[in-house]
Amino acid sequence: MNSPNHPFDQAIALAPDNDGAFIGRTSEHYWNAISPFGGTTVATLLQAMLTHPQRLGDPLALTVNFAGPIKQGDFIVRVSPVRTSRSTQHWQMEIRQEVNSEPAITGTAVFALRRDTWSDTESRIPDVAAPETLTRHPAPAMVPFLERYDMRYVDGNPLRGGDDSATQCWISDVPPRKLDFASIAAYCDSFVPRLFVRKGAPTPISTVTLSINFHIDDNALQKQQGLYAFGKAKANAFNGGYYDQEAQLWSQDGALLATTHQLVWFRDQAL
Amino acid sequence: MNSPNHPFDQAIALAPDNDGAFIGRTSEHYWNAISPFGGTTVATLLQAMLTHPQRLGDPLALTVNFAGPIKQGDFIVRVSPVRTSRSTQHWQMEIRQEVNSEPAITGTAVFALRRDTWSDTESRIPDVAAPETLTRHPAPAMVPFLERYDMRYVDGNPLRGGDDSATQCWISDVPPRKLDFASIAAYCDSFVPRLFVRKGAPTPISTVTLSINFHIDDNALQKQQGLYAFGKAKANAFNGGYYDQEAQLWSQDGALLATTHQLVWFRDQAL
Repeated sequence: MNSPNHPFDQAIALAPDNDGAFIGRTSEHYWNAISPFGGTTVATLLQAMLTHPQRLGDPLALTVNFAGPIKQGDFIVRVSPVRTSRSTQHWQMEIRQEVNSEPAITGTAVFALRRDTWSDTESRIPDVAAPETLTRHPAPAMVPFLERYDMRYVDGNPLRGGDDSATQCWISDVPPRKLDFASIAAYCDSFVPRLFVRKGAPTPISTVTLSINFHIDDNALQKQQGLYAFGKAKANAFNGGYYDQEAQLWSQDGALLATTHQLVWFRDQAL
Repeated sequence: MNSPNHPFDQAIALAPDNDGAFIGRTSEHYWNAISPFGGTTVATLLQAMLTHPQRLGDPLALTVNFAGPIKQGDFIVRVSPVRTSRSTQHWQMEIRQEVNSEPAITGTAVFALRRDTWSDTESRIPDVAAPETLTRHPAPAMVPFLERYDMRYVDGNPLRGGDDSATQCWISDVPPRKLDFASIAAYCDSFVPRLFVRKGAPTPISTVTLSINFHIDDNALQKQQGLYAFGKAKANAFNGGYYDQEAQLWSQDGALLATTHQLVWFRDQAL
């Protein structure tokens, strides 16, 4: 069990509000350059569903859309199960900062009960150096949330420039924290932006939408050993002010945890 | 321009209803084994946004959740722009078959105005045999929608069994039809199910959720030549009654059109 005092647990903590909603609050520990780290926003929504009294099963898929900025302070989280069958449950979700404001975040999710079936993983964890043999990539100044992630790249400095955006790294919370669905969701947004990899330096970007497919249930997740996850990320295309990122995430002992996809807005600055 | 008499255009046609909603109708030409082909459902939702008077820009991303069955007959489509900024527009969408029924489909989408920026495509179309040199894969009986797709596999019979679910094929409408966003969306759901590839035969499956990231704008799409698209699809994992599919789709002249990801429920039948 993770401690409720871990900064990540504090960042995604929710208090019940009127009418079934929850109140959350942005965390200074997980602040990004000008807004909260998107990974904590996704994890907070997931946490709202995981702790909801009507929840069925485990997370299967979610899509979170970043429709407008979240300012420092409180926010209102709404997650609603809109249709539940024997084995799947469909959710709608949103975050607003004022009751009557436009949504800052919209999204949908699917939870499911897994059954004992034929199973096989085609995407296997690569054979790479163990995290203990690698050094932590230094977090840049002015990006507080990166202080909360221990990233260890297996292919050298990710800000290398060049014509290939693929990177591979171990990821762990700071301080260490056992993997759960919330941290997996946050890890899915923790990869160094693909544009930074291509250009060798940070540029203005903003995630527009992020989807996660989960490949493990809570029962199997509880059995995972090791505090690192391993991630492989790449872009398919950069085009007209938007680019994508695809990634796969494994547990330290090699179970495929999630695959994730996002689209990112970017500004062209003499690139 | 495509003819409004093409069965695909008829399948995704909408009539205005009260209160900003639209009425659609399932198509016998795009019927799947026990429900409409999911690709036409996705394309119908996209078409509702494309023809909406408040639309900004071109499709960037969408997620469609299959929450319940759609029966043969009419259905009510609602698409609502929930937040519009200078360059992006966020939508919510749903399909119901009765005004007060639970939603059969939920989803979100993002439209965007692309700008002239540095651009690069990392995922290139593979060097494979031209569609004219290959034969059409025979559509199985009892699956009407597959009569509407000319699929030409470059690696032989996709129902081969084995331990790798990856397939590559050319795809075109029957009769031929110029590529547009609606047909791209439908193609994203047209790939032979990954479980069939692994097991060498059809088994009961049902798509639970499907996401598409678009990598082209309408201006570039209009310039594409050739009536085939090329698709590469694979699974990452089959686990506990659900598996995923990831795919990339290019135009015949090699422009990356879309990448797509879905999660599929499956029944274990002595697999």
